[in-house]
Amino acid sequence: MNQQVNRGVRTGGRSARVREAILTATFDELVATGYAALSMEAVASRAGVHKTTVYRRWPTVDDLLLDALTTWSQEALPVPDTGSIDTDLVALGRELADALNDGVGRQIAAFVLTSGLRSSRLSEATRRYFDHQALRAVPTVRQAVDRGELPETCDANALLTTFRAPLFYRMVTTGDPIDDALITHAVDVALNAARAGLLSG
Amino acid sequence: MNQQVNRGVRTGGRSARVREAILTATFDELVATGYAALSMEAVASRAGVHKTTVYRRWPTVDDLLLDALTTWSQEALPVPDTGSIDTDLVALGRELADALNDGVGRQIAAFVLTSGLRSSRLSEATRRYFDHQALRAVPTVRQAVDRGELPETCDANALLTTFRAPLFYRMVTTGDPIDDALITHAVDVALNAARAGLLSG
Repeated sequence: MNQQVNRGVRTGGRSARVREAILTATFDELVATGYAALSMEAVASRAGVHKTTVYRRWPTVDDLLLDALTTWSQEALPVPDTGSIDTDLVALGRELADALNDGVGRQIAAFVLTSGLRSSRLSEATRRYFDHQALRAVPTVRQAVDRGELPETCDANALLTTFRAPLFYRMVTTGDPIDDALITHAVDVALNAARAGLLSG
Repeated sequence: MNQQVNRGVRTGGRSARVREAILTATFDELVATGYAALSMEAVASRAGVHKTTVYRRWPTVDDLLLDALTTWSQEALPVPDTGSIDTDLVALGRELADALNDGVGRQIAAFVLTSGLRSSRLSEATRRYFDHQALRAVPTVRQAVDRGELPETCDANALLTTFRAPLFYRMVTTGDPIDDALITHAVDVALNAARAGLLSG
């Protein structure tokens, strides 16, 4: 329970700093090596702590990953507010591209497709990771509705899913980098579908 | 070269039958265990041959997988011809759902996201696998253009990519089964984008 408190208030105490360093190192190691090669020793080394410090709180690699995913999924992330839904979605698309091109998103997707499915707790945590990425932008879509850029019936989650799908598609099928041409095309298709009333709640 | 001839004409000779059994067993094992656990012994056992028969032609698991992917990507597959693009796409979506829900498509996607990227030959073969899945349906889209169901400028590949993306998105982010509700929604969004002129070549 103490973990939760430290996480929430960010006291900056040594325990909280160590915890944050270890969870950050977990994601960094995941990106560097993938899930199959993720080791407690490498996480401890990257975080600059002794491995017993890691084992004391997280008995297994899965516990570490579960906590890192859960913590990330509770963070309040800033969302773009550029004044129009077109440019807001392009900004969101660029952030997503960073996560999927070389970042933790790609490794977590690989995890969903492989071992993630064998552990229901981890599977639930990976789902929350991607949900959070999409849901944090719901206010952005609501603002666009308020400004009259989208129909009032537009379902924010359906719009964000439609917009994000082509970026994931490229990552999975070819592995080619997600670039601005793909992002702007995905924005056009999603906004068009929304304006045609296909993305209503 | 003889392999190619056997594959094309399907002579039914013993060598061709053994080869087909081994490549089929490779995909079946991939689905059952995933790439990381794929073994020559298990493939041989599943195909009902001695493992030396496998090693003689395919020195490594990667050689087996490369050949299985390449062979599959050259097969002429039947495509739906139901009389309208809406129902043709639904039929294609159901086939894709079978491959992604529990089939080889999911394992190959996992492979793209993990070790596939470390071998350029295999990476190229996995890309061809997904390309082939999409490209085989290009005539289906062309027919729809000829029938006046889609604008003449519609780019078949762009339409198929837009249609397939939401199915892959669900597989990657939640792992939930791809069902008919998702498929018909993906058809609506893709056809709407095409008719709005957003998917032109």
